[in-house]
Formats: sequence, C-alpha cells, structure tokens
Amino acid sequence: MKCNMSGIKFPNSEKVYMSGKLFPDIKVGMRKVRLTPTVTIDECGERHFKENDSVYIYDTGGPFSDPDIDIDPMRGLPRMREKWILERGGVEAVDGKTCIYRAKCKEQISQMYYAKKGIITREMEYVAIRENMNCEELGIKSHITPEFVCEEIATGRAVLPSNVNHPESEPMIIGKNFLVKINANIGNSDTSSDINEEVEKAIWSCRWGGDTLMDLSTGKNITETRQWIIRNSPVPVGTVPIYQALERVNGHIEDLNWDIYRNTLIEQCEQGVDYFTIHCGIRLHNIHLADNRLCGIVSRGGSIMSKWCQIHKKENFLYEHFDDICDILAQYDVAISLGDGLRPGSIYDANDAAQFAELDTMGELIERAWAKNVQAFIEGPGHVPMHKIAENMQRQIEKCHGAPFYTLGPLVTDIAPAYDNITSAIGAAQIGWLGTAMLCYVTPKEHLALPNKEDVRTGIITYKIAAHAADVAKGHPGATIRDNAISKARYEFRWKDQFNLSLDPELALEYYKSRKHEEGEFCTMCGPDFCAMRLSREVRKCK
Amino acid sequence: MKCNMSGIKFPNSEKVYMSGKLFPDIKVGMRKVRLTPTVTIDECGERHFKENDSVYIYDTGGPFSDPDIDIDPMRGLPRMREKWILERGGVEAVDGKTCIYRAKCKEQISQMYYAKKGIITREMEYVAIRENMNCEELGIKSHITPEFVCEEIATGRAVLPSNVNHPESEPMIIGKNFLVKINANIGNSDTSSDINEEVEKAIWSCRWGGDTLMDLSTGKNITETRQWIIRNSPVPVGTVPIYQALERVNGHIEDLNWDIYRNTLIEQCEQGVDYFTIHCGIRLHNIHLADNRLCGIVSRGGSIMSKWCQIHKKENFLYEHFDDICDILAQYDVAISLGDGLRPGSIYDANDAAQFAELDTMGELIERAWAKNVQAFIEGPGHVPMHKIAENMQRQIEKCHGAPFYTLGPLVTDIAPAYDNITSAIGAAQIGWLGTAMLCYVTPKEHLALPNKEDVRTGIITYKIAAHAADVAKGHPGATIRDNAISKARYEFRWKDQFNLSLDPELALEYYKSRKHEEGEFCTMCGPDFCAMRLSREVRKCK
Repeated sequence: MKCNMSGIKFPNSEKVYMSGKLFPDIKVGMRKVRLTPTVTIDECGERHFKENDSVYIYDTGGPFSDPDIDIDPMRGLPRMREKWILERGGVEAVDGKTCIYRAKCKEQISQMYYAKKGIITREMEYVAIRENMNCEELGIKSHITPEFVCEEIATGRAVLPSNVNHPESEPMIIGKNFLVKINANIGNSDTSSDINEEVEKAIWSCRWGGDTLMDLSTGKNITETRQWIIRNSPVPVGTVPIYQALERVNGHIEDLNWDIYRNTLIEQCEQGVDYFTIHCGIRLHNIHLADNRLCGIVSRGGSIMSKWCQIHKKENFLYEHFDDICDILAQYDVAISLGDGLRPGSIYDANDAAQFAELDTMGELIERAWAKNVQAFIEGPGHVPMHKIAENMQRQIEKCHGAPFYTLGPLVTDIAPAYDNITSAIGAAQIGWLGTAMLCYVTPKEHLALPNKEDVRTGIITYKIAAHAADVAKGHPGATIRDNAISKARYEFRWKDQFNLSLDPELALEYYKSRKHEEGEFCTMCGPDFCAMRLSREVRKCK
Repeated sequence: MKCNMSGIKFPNSEKVYMSGKLFPDIKVGMRKVRLTPTVTIDECGERHFKENDSVYIYDTGGPFSDPDIDIDPMRGLPRMREKWILERGGVEAVDGKTCIYRAKCKEQISQMYYAKKGIITREMEYVAIRENMNCEELGIKSHITPEFVCEEIATGRAVLPSNVNHPESEPMIIGKNFLVKINANIGNSDTSSDINEEVEKAIWSCRWGGDTLMDLSTGKNITETRQWIIRNSPVPVGTVPIYQALERVNGHIEDLNWDIYRNTLIEQCEQGVDYFTIHCGIRLHNIHLADNRLCGIVSRGGSIMSKWCQIHKKENFLYEHFDDICDILAQYDVAISLGDGLRPGSIYDANDAAQFAELDTMGELIERAWAKNVQAFIEGPGHVPMHKIAENMQRQIEKCHGAPFYTLGPLVTDIAPAYDNITSAIGAAQIGWLGTAMLCYVTPKEHLALPNKEDVRTGIITYKIAAHAADVAKGHPGATIRDNAISKARYEFRWKDQFNLSLDPELALEYYKSRKHEEGEFCTMCGPDFCAMRLSREVRKCK
C-alpha cells in the first residue's frame, strides 16, 4: 500500500473533541479554527486588540485529521464503534470469522430498532453533538437533541448508517431536519485507476468534507479495492451490489439471479458496506414508460435490471425478493438506498411517467423496509430544469412518507459538459433547501471521464457550497456562524482568517498571491484609492 | 496594439446571417452548428443515416466570429449602426469632431423615445430576430415580435443600450421577457494589467458569450483603455464614471463636484459608453442605516459617494443633479444603470433597511429617467442567502415599476472565496428565473484578485449556465432546443456533436481525451459492460 496517508492539515486549525452527556465516553471530533484579534487604532495612534471567537467546523477527516493518531493503512483505522456495538449486544461473530458480526438469530440490532424502542444509542448522541457545532459555545438554541435524533430515526425521517462491520466509521445522520450531507462517488472502471488511487481519493474526499463515499468500482479487484477503502474510511461507505454480481456472471446480464445477488449482498454486509443502492423500484410493467425518452435509462443499475426483466420477461428479482433483502440487511444494520433506475438523464425527460411510477414503487417498498427495522432512503434525479425541481421534492415527501431524499444534483441544463459540477450545484442547492437530505456530488468530468483527485476536490467543494447554502436557507442552528466570521474577517482585512475559515484555504491563498500588488489595508480588486471596505470604515469613523 | 485579434472559431460552426422583414438591410449574425447524422444498423447489418437539424446559437462575437471580415484593431470594428442612426436623423456631429454625434437641440433620439411613439427601429427588429434563434426554423411560436420589443422598451420594462457613438455595437435587449443576459467586468486597477490585456479580455468575453462589458478601470490610461475597448467591442459597454472623476481629483473624494462629474459624463458619452452605473440612490439621511452592518458599504461608488456626503454634510450631488444627468444622457441614448451603492456585502447584511431604502429612491428616480426618455435599469445585490432572494425580486418589481433588474450574483454563502463564481451562480440562476434581466458575472477570483483571461472564461461560462437555466425555467421560446440536441447526441454516442453544441467545446474535448480507454459505443464513465446508455438502447431494440 503506497497511498499517501499523511494527515489532513488545515492552517490555524486543531482537532478537538467534545464529550457526550449521556455517554461521557464518546468523543466527537471537530476542527477548531483559531482567529487573530481585531485591531483598531485610536486617535492617539494606539493599537487596541479584541479577541475573535474560534469557529468550530464539522470535520469528516476522522483520525486522519488528528496528528496524535498514527495510522497504518495495512491495519486500518481505529475500530471506535466496536466496543459500543458489542456492549449493546445482540450480535455474534460470523462462523468463526474474527471481527465480523451479525445479529444473533431473532435479535434486532439496527439504529431504527433501538429508536423505535426509545433507546438512545451512543451513535445518536454523537450525531446530536456533531450537528450542533458552535451552538453550545455561542448559546444558540438547537432543536437537535439526542431525543430528537432518536425520534427522527424511529419515524424513518432520518438514517444513521452504521453497519456493525464498519466500526471505523464515525456516526453521521441523513435527514431533512439535519445538516445537508454530500456523497462523493469514487471507484475504478475496468482498465482505469488502481487501488492506491482509489484509497487516496477516498481520504481526499474526507479531507474536503465528503460525508459519505460510494465505491462504484466495476473493474478488477473489486473486493480488494473495497476492503482497503472501508478499513480506512471514517465515513459511511455505500455500494451498488449489482455491479459486483454482474462481474460474477462475466457481464452476462441474463445470467444474473437471486442467489448470486444474495451472496454478493452478504459478502458486502460482512465487509462493512453501510448502505446499498438497490434498484428494486424497476417494475416489468413500467419499463415501457421510458420508451419515448430522449435519453432512455441512464442509471447503470436501472438499465441492467430493465434488460434482465426484458430478457426473461419476468418481474425484477430485486423487487420480488425485497423482503429477503431486508431480512439480510437488518442483521448488519445496513441501510437501503432505493436506487432510481429510471431517473431522467436529460431535462427533456424530467418528471415523466417512468420516473414517477418508480417513485410510487419506492414509496411502497420503504414502508416494507421500515417494518423490518431497516433504515432506508430514496434516490432522486438527475437532470431537472429549475421549474420542475419543487415537484420532485413534494412528490417524494408525499409518496415516500418523509423518508430522506438523496439526489444526484440535479443538473438544471444539459448544455455544459465539463462544468456539470456547476449545472448540478444550482439544482442541488435548491432541492437541498426544499428538504433533500443528501446530495450526491457531480464533478466537472461527469459525462466525460472518471474523476481524478483534483476533480474530486472540485466536486466536493462545489457540493459543500450547495449543501451549506441550503443549511443557511433552511435555518439550521448556527449555520451562518462561519459566514459571519469570514465576512467580519474580510471587512477587517484579516486576510488569513478569511482564508483559514474558507472551504479551500489553499486555493484562496493561491489566488490572493496571484495579484500584482502588496498586501495592505485595501481590497485587492479595487486598489488603495477605490477600496470600498476601507472607505466604508472611514465613513463610520468620520461620524 | 499587439493584442491577439485572431478570429473566434468554434468547431463545426459557421457564421450565418438572418435578414429583417421590416428592414431587409439588417443582418443578424448567429452561429450555426452543423451536426452529424444519426446512424442506426438494421438486422441485416446495413447502416441507415438520419440527418440532425443544425442548431443556431446566439452569437456575441460580432465581426470577430466572421472569417470574412478583416479586423484592424487600430481602426476598430465596422460601424454597422452609424447609417441607421444618421438615416433616422435628429443627431448632429459634435462641434467639428468627426463621427461623434449627439441629438440636435430639442430633438429626442433614444430608443425609448421612438418606442413611445410606436416607431419600430432597426435595432428593435434586430433584437427580435436575435432572441428567436431557432424558432422560425423549427416552427416555434414566439411572443417576441418587433412590436413586442417596441412596447417593452416604451414601458421601460426593457432596455436596448445603444449610444449613437458606439455604432460598432450589435443591438441586444435587457428585460425580463427576453433571454437573460450576462455582463463581464474587466478593467485594470492602478498597477495591474495593461491596455492590450484588457482589450484581449474584452474580445475573450465576447467569444464565450458575454452580452455586455463593463470597463471598471481605475488606473492610469483610463481614457485610452476605454477607447480601445469601445472601438473593438461588438457588445454594449458600461462604465462607472465616478471612477474617472475621482482620478481627475487625484483620489481626493472631498474635491469631487458636479462640474467634474458632468465633464466626465460628456466625455464618456462622446466616446461611446452605452450605459453608466450612477450611484444616485445614496441619500445623506440613509447612510447611517448601514452603520450596524457586518461589512458596511462594499460598492466602490457607494462608498465614495457616502464619504463625499459625510465630508460635506450635503446631499449626494448625483441625486441632486439627476435631471441634469438625464438631460445629458438623452442626447446620446446612453442608459442609466442605477447603482446599488448600499448593496449587502455579506449574507448577514442582506435585505436590510439600508439596501431597501436605496431601492425606494431608485424607484423614484427611474420614473424621472423615463420622463426624459432615458432608458434605465436597476442594480441589485450582492450577497443574499437563498431564502431571501425572492423578496429582492418582488420588491424591485413593485418599487421600480417593472424596470429591468441587473444583479451581481447574488452569492448565497460567504464561505467559499476562490469559488465565488459558483456561490453566486446558485443565486444568479434563481433570481434570473424570478425575473432578473441581466446577471453580472463573478469570477473565481472575486474578493481575492483581478481576473485574468482564464478567470474571465470561467466566469462567463458559469454565468451562461445560470442565465440559460433561467431561460429554460422561464420557458423562453426555443430555450431547450440546444439542451435537447446535446442530450440526443449524448444518447447516440455522437461525442463530437455533444462537444460542439456545448458551452465550452474545447474543455469538454480535453476532459474526454483525459480518459484512459478508447472511443466506442459506451459512456466513458462506466466502461463497456456497464454503459447505461448502450444497455438502454438494447432494451429498446429487444422489444
């Protein structure tokens, strides 16, 4: 393993931990950014200093951002949650395999199960603390308590992905009443990319703020790649198991069947995947609804299952075996992401009968998942023009009983390949504001090539912007603290504080240094005589 | 003049012209993108070809995108509109200066004047044709007729910038019932940038789709820089005259006065500036409203005028002389962009009393401009979180009597310096959809440094995305034709057509080539076995 595992560092930042009240042994990591004081000069020329509060930032870097933790990629990250899981009980080691667990026969162990019982887990208190970054410090009242988290999970409005076999993962929550989360897709396809590269991308994604990772590998070494990623991922990992099942039948869709799929599921449950995208919403009698589309079926899983249905003239076996799937997933607390196999792949196809028929099916399935205490959420589009976005959210809430929505963008226009991080961020911010719980990032290379490390960075930052803009618009407690701190720093010409508080301090500093004149008490863009901020401060002074 | 004046070329594209019906002598340039045919293979293995319609694209390149026109930057572009202006009459050469015109004493010559009389000008038919790109060809009915254009200008709901001294400029229209336009800011500040660089940026902006240019130079050679830009600009040019006035008093704000400002205005009117940002909405009694802001006053012009008011304890001389300003501008048909000197510079300051007090003043002034047949529009923010955007648009429509709104973004969060093209495109797309007529671009270097050529490109493309997304959402006639053509090409693996139709063919192709495997009948991201589009076409075939 040659991948670059050097720690995650941000300027003027330190990793700090907050303990639980219900569970004093939990330690929730966050990044504390220290600011410089505000300097004012009085009429006598004397300088006065006024401290500025540190700002706490949600940290997805896990142990990588803690310089005190040595990480050996061969061993993987510390198994923080293992003790919690074992202490709760209900699990046993799988047939002699060390450190691989599942529920004991007839036992229930999912977060949803505990939530329905009114039992608050360590994971629940962990996310409550994590969601309230800065609130306690600044006396901001938040609706997010461990009890609230518990209730949201119990009703299915939120998902806390937490496979018992991924104890390295730090608890996080996906639901409309929480911070909007973002997912980064990584994974190799056949000939491109190797394992080191994928693991590096995984850590890189966590560095910039990715909340979950989906490993969409379809190439060789699919199991080994995933093993490296999961063992070194501090965030939940999702997959699309049909990709591996298809590898197992050498790409022959007609040979896919429930047994092969089932074995794949179990293997991945044991490996520690936290959520599976499963395209069980594709129904034989609905496939024809996509016939008149401009772009047909653009979901890989959706097109595979549609073809399978048509070859065999049979109902989708994932739909038929949905209860069996839930029974398996419940044993590990793996969540289902109900895949939108019929999502629109062009704005022309948005909100059509095919898409909404599948949504109705998902609404039926989500209740069946909940009945078995399986956490679940719903995937959404795709390509949707702005005036059709709200209908997506409204129908999803109505048909899917408040389950979290997880969308890919949506892209609001099709005319900008090479800029689809932007076309999609416009849609993502809007749908996030309307209530979408997690946004799947889109990189500039969408439609063109697989993303490299720099594309992952651009995709993540773009989506942090969309998600944060949605948090601000939704009024998430304390969401504007970082905005206000950065704006105050900007107004006071505390350039370094401005950069240190920003989503990408490195790039901001690099751009700042590209300017041709010297640092000083004026805004770079205007030059000294025309600096609005300097003049504005003089306006205040001269009164 | 060493600047790179080589023509604007796009792959598989040609410059074509459409003639007027009312005025057969007008020639409206547009870019025609030729597509390859769709190829299908039947059961006998025989290939069948089906033509795909060419797509017409709005072209802001002017003569630069016509290979048949030789351009000598020393002479400037052909003076297309000069004949039209002279034929209409009402103008005379200014005191012996060749080719510098203004209205004869007591004559009215503005587009608004003609519109109020019900007279359709060549400029009006020109923009009607230009707005309906693709419609005639495809039989799409459009509400945009020359008569409609005339009526929109008469009521003040639209502005057609057209200084009689910038006859090189191709007519374009700014109004909520037309395509959303974008403006690019260029200009040097003191020590940075030289004239060649600025002219190159100007042409570069037109290449990528900028609809107007603002020259915000504040440095040396301000007059000469502007002269080069205007003579070589096929799009309307705007300025902020207070910058030059301030240079004239060596940066001493207290020395500014009406005479100096008036002389600057006249000089720029004669030079051919099409619209002026004038900060006449700043009122002495309102300045204190910005006192409790996080970021004070962030508009350069706004801070200059506020400081002037406070030094002299007098009302803003631009407000006091508003009617005099209008009298001057009416002589040349220069439009006023009522500058929002108190726009918020952080999301914390959005929609506050200072901002809205100024908007009320603008509402009063716009009616006074219209009374003098001066075309006018209203500038807007700035930094506004998503949930406060709609109020901006609603109040602007209500208070400013339907005058076009021209906003800078708005940025929906402050936390992403180095990505503010994206934070602002999210807001721009939304406010464009709600009715904003023109969006001022923001580049990735906003807040950090002046943009270079690549930043201009990124800023323009980002804003073309926002504007186009808004056009689609508003239902502009034919807006989705380009989206649909590109999506069809994508589905049929006509990669080159996909790229040629995109906003940035070069970058799309570059990204595509970065992939590691060969071109073929599958989507790059998935590899051959997993290509959803290929499978989807098979799904259709196998029925």
